[in-house]
Amino acid sequence: MTAAPETTVSAQFLGLLARDLPPDRLTTDPVVLAAHATDRSGTRPQGEPLAVVHAERTEDVTVTLRHAHALGVPVVPRGAGTGLSGGATAGEGALVLDLSRMNRIRELSADDQLAVVEPGVVTAELDRAAGAHGLRYAPDPASAAISTIGGNIATNAGGLRCAKYGVTRDSVLGLEAVLADGTVIGTGRRTVKGVTGYDLTALLTGSEGTLAVITSATLRLRPLPVATATLAAWFDSFEAAAEASYAIARAGVVPALAELVDGPVLEAIDPALRARGAALLLVQCDGAGAAIEAAVVARVLAPLASAVEATEDPVEAETLLAARRLALPALERLGRPLIEDIAVPRSRLAEAAREIRDISARHGVPVFTIAHAADGNLHPIIVVDPSLDRLPEAAWEAAGEIFALALRLGGTLTGEHGVGVLKRQWVADELGPAAHALQRRLKEVFDPRGILNPGKSL
Amino acid sequence: MTAAPETTVSAQFLGLLARDLPPDRLTTDPVVLAAHATDRSGTRPQGEPLAVVHAERTEDVTVTLRHAHALGVPVVPRGAGTGLSGGATAGEGALVLDLSRMNRIRELSADDQLAVVEPGVVTAELDRAAGAHGLRYAPDPASAAISTIGGNIATNAGGLRCAKYGVTRDSVLGLEAVLADGTVIGTGRRTVKGVTGYDLTALLTGSEGTLAVITSATLRLRPLPVATATLAAWFDSFEAAAEASYAIARAGVVPALAELVDGPVLEAIDPALRARGAALLLVQCDGAGAAIEAAVVARVLAPLASAVEATEDPVEAETLLAARRLALPALERLGRPLIEDIAVPRSRLAEAAREIRDISARHGVPVFTIAHAADGNLHPIIVVDPSLDRLPEAAWEAAGEIFALALRLGGTLTGEHGVGVLKRQWVADELGPAAHALQRRLKEVFDPRGILNPGKSL
Ligand SMILES: Cc1cc2nc3c(=O)[nH]c(=O)nc-3n(C[C@H](O)[C@H](O)[C@H](O)COP(=O)(O)OP(=O)(O)OC[C@H]3O[C@@H](n4cnc5c(N)ncnc54)[C@H](O)[C@@H]3O)c2cc1C
Ligand SMILES: Cc1cc2nc3c(=O)[nH]c(=O)nc-3n(C[C@H](O)[C@H](O)[C@H](O)COP(=O)(O)OP(=O)(O)OC[C@H]3O[C@@H](n4cnc5c(N)ncnc54)[C@H](O)[C@@H]3O)c2cc1C
Repeated sequence: MTAAPETTVSAQFLGLLARDLPPDRLTTDPVVLAAHATDRSGTRPQGEPLAVVHAERTEDVTVTLRHAHALGVPVVPRGAGTGLSGGATAGEGALVLDLSRMNRIRELSADDQLAVVEPGVVTAELDRAAGAHGLRYAPDPASAAISTIGGNIATNAGGLRCAKYGVTRDSVLGLEAVLADGTVIGTGRRTVKGVTGYDLTALLTGSEGTLAVITSATLRLRPLPVATATLAAWFDSFEAAAEASYAIARAGVVPALAELVDGPVLEAIDPALRARGAALLLVQCDGAGAAIEAAVVARVLAPLASAVEATEDPVEAETLLAARRLALPALERLGRPLIEDIAVPRSRLAEAAREIRDISARHGVPVFTIAHAADGNLHPIIVVDPSLDRLPEAAWEAAGEIFALALRLGGTLTGEHGVGVLKRQWVADELGPAAHALQRRLKEVFDPRGILNPGKSL
Repeated sequence: MTAAPETTVSAQFLGLLARDLPPDRLTTDPVVLAAHATDRSGTRPQGEPLAVVHAERTEDVTVTLRHAHALGVPVVPRGAGTGLSGGATAGEGALVLDLSRMNRIRELSADDQLAVVEPGVVTAELDRAAGAHGLRYAPDPASAAISTIGGNIATNAGGLRCAKYGVTRDSVLGLEAVLADGTVIGTGRRTVKGVTGYDLTALLTGSEGTLAVITSATLRLRPLPVATATLAAWFDSFEAAAEASYAIARAGVVPALAELVDGPVLEAIDPALRARGAALLLVQCDGAGAAIEAAVVARVLAPLASAVEATEDPVEAETLLAARRLALPALERLGRPLIEDIAVPRSRLAEAAREIRDISARHGVPVFTIAHAADGNLHPIIVVDPSLDRLPEAAWEAAGEIFALALRLGGTLTGEHGVGVLKRQWVADELGPAAHALQRRLKEVFDPRGILNPGKSL
């Protein structure tokens, strides 16, 4: 008997990689494979990946993709695997292309306020390096201490500060990327403006590893703010807190962050917090006008909140923000959190929260909600029993209704975490058939054989 | 004898349009054709366009494109024709698709800080409408009083305020657009964040009418700043003024605008201005911290400038800014200005200015320079004799060297005006062969028959 053709191709592929890559790049150690098969979504793909390539330079990526393209082997690009939508999960027959060893900051220019980095640089490390020059890397996903820049770009990650400074895309000036067939392209430039050709930088940002593998990024840095002022306001309901966030916008203030935490989350963190109110709104203003803006915010919130605390001291500010930062760890103590990520036009935040509560009640599924209020980005978190092998049907149904709600309100399935595998079935609803078909045709231009992260995103 | 096939197709096309469009949309009046054949670049295409369709609704666009696509007739989308790179020029056999009658603001939501507009809305009119709600439309090309939103999006227009608020792309949340074959697609959404699918909104922004015709845009509005503070500083050289602009950035201030005007431009506006210095740097800070930031800027500039004036009064500020606003009209009095538009990493501004002066001297071509300093975006303006039928060879050569300089410094051919027809021959140099080829394949996905603005951009 001969081996199945599938196996032959895999063996041939691994042989070529072993021949053409430096010795320490390729591994088929089952322990390593298991560690690279999933991400923080908890999704378990079918079967085991074929192997992991730990790329250390662009050539490792081109060699890997060239062979994968020729042989039609699926490749899953991977940063730190902190994704929440299953984007970096790799099942039967897939090769994991791990970029985390490409972790050098190649350049940091204080005068041009930019950095050129490899994709495996950890987000917080770039921010720290920038800090030494009075600068910062603005995008700050809550996973900044563990996620990579490559993963941030591939998911167009958000964070807290994007209320004022925008999402990852707003800080990406240019990319080096490798197409499915191993062709290296450069996109964008070292300038903040530029309109020659189509905006491939933006097209690759958020493409979840399905169009190209990012091997270098030119990123915009911004001055560290000279001051910050932080407020914590307590409310009798999530809706009241949401309405208060509109009032801040109406007063003309653009806060650096505006985070909402609902009562059940407060309860999970510490019942003493919940005793203070049914919802918490955290607002930070930054820059030369921070104190003036915070005074406006305090004036706006005073008649709406049951209590408002404010500080210009960074250490005290961290204490106030702790309620937000502790949310996820607290929910993890209750079970397995499924973190949804819808966004709605910001004036619909209260309405969205109300409907999510109804959905929760209707399906008997507890939903905990935190939100980036200024962006209308809600994270309704369904906590499930971790001992269950598969998700309870009711949790799926509740999630589906939450997505439908987001679209009905003119919003989106995913504000910042990406579609991955978890939200694929709803993508066509959001994009509409014409744009969906067009996007698939674009994908074919970049990846005609469909080897880059198949089954993800579109 | 039968008519040439070309003519037959044209006649057939016009017949179909006459049949399928409402009566007042199609015109072949030679006066109208002549008025729609070129833009403000002064480029004269070969021959006359076939006809003009004045679209009043999306269906007029779909009808027009469907027939054009079926018959292979080139279509030139057109806003106000204020473009400076020849993007809206239409020669022999082309149909001009004029969007300027689609000029309704469909919605303006103060709570969501967004507007939904048709493409023919004049930029300044949207800004004015937003102003009534305490908001503004941030992108402010100097042509705002005459350009359209559709043209702004298609060129990803910049302006003065993009130093702080970004270019047009940073204010576009979503689009409705018609593909070459008449398919209508929606892109983006009404939320500031969202990562479902690829970023078609950004891909269409800056695509110069070559990928799709924009028929509606959802635009982000921002709060009007509560205060502004404006400074004018005089320097002994352009380089000294450029170096001063770096010092502002190094001090951590992000000004709302930072404009540089060189000596020859000052001289052209008014010799009394030139007598005050060889270069002028105008800086405006805005927001709650405006006065504090302006004080920092004044402190930074004091030792570097020969004189600094400052004001927090908006009317006085306009007087200071007049030197920038009057630049183009003043140069138009001297001849026909060819406005170049390179961008360089901002720390190379002084170097770029010095080299441009050398290029000017070497070719005996006078070059006048204004710059958006914070973006490293220079407008070297070559003024030629308006009586000449074609550009003098020396002007072309000087322009070519200026483009090469931009690329050598890590910059771009065009910071904000677009490639159009004027910069096409240099595009491949900037993009590199792999990205250029990829972009052409993307174009084919949107426009397989190549009818949308052929000969422009790529
Ligand atoms: C505690 C916690 C908090 C979080 N908070 C936030 C938050 O506030 N905001 C937010 O947006 N997200 C958040 N996330 C989600 C996650 O951290 C982000 O999506 C992050 O950007 C993923 O980075 P990564 O390096 O782990 O990428 P991975 O998970 O490894 O990959 C993510 C996706 O990117 C692709 N990819 C990775 N690297 C490359 C590359 N070099 N080239 C091409 N494709 C690539 C993968 O194929 C996959 O599709 C959080 C996650 C956790 C666990
Ligand atoms: C005095 C003056 C000052 C200027 N200052 C600036 C400045 O500060 N910053 C700046 O960026 N530019 C500036 N410009 C250039 C010009 O105004 C901008 O490029 C503007 O965006 C063009 O808008 P428009 O409506 O006139 O477009 P047009 O000139 O009609 O068209 C420009 C391009 O857009 C395409 N297009 C137009 N409408 C659509 C549509 N609905 N769908 C698809 N494609 C379309 C056209 O095919 C063409 O390629 C200036 C021009 C002048 C004359």
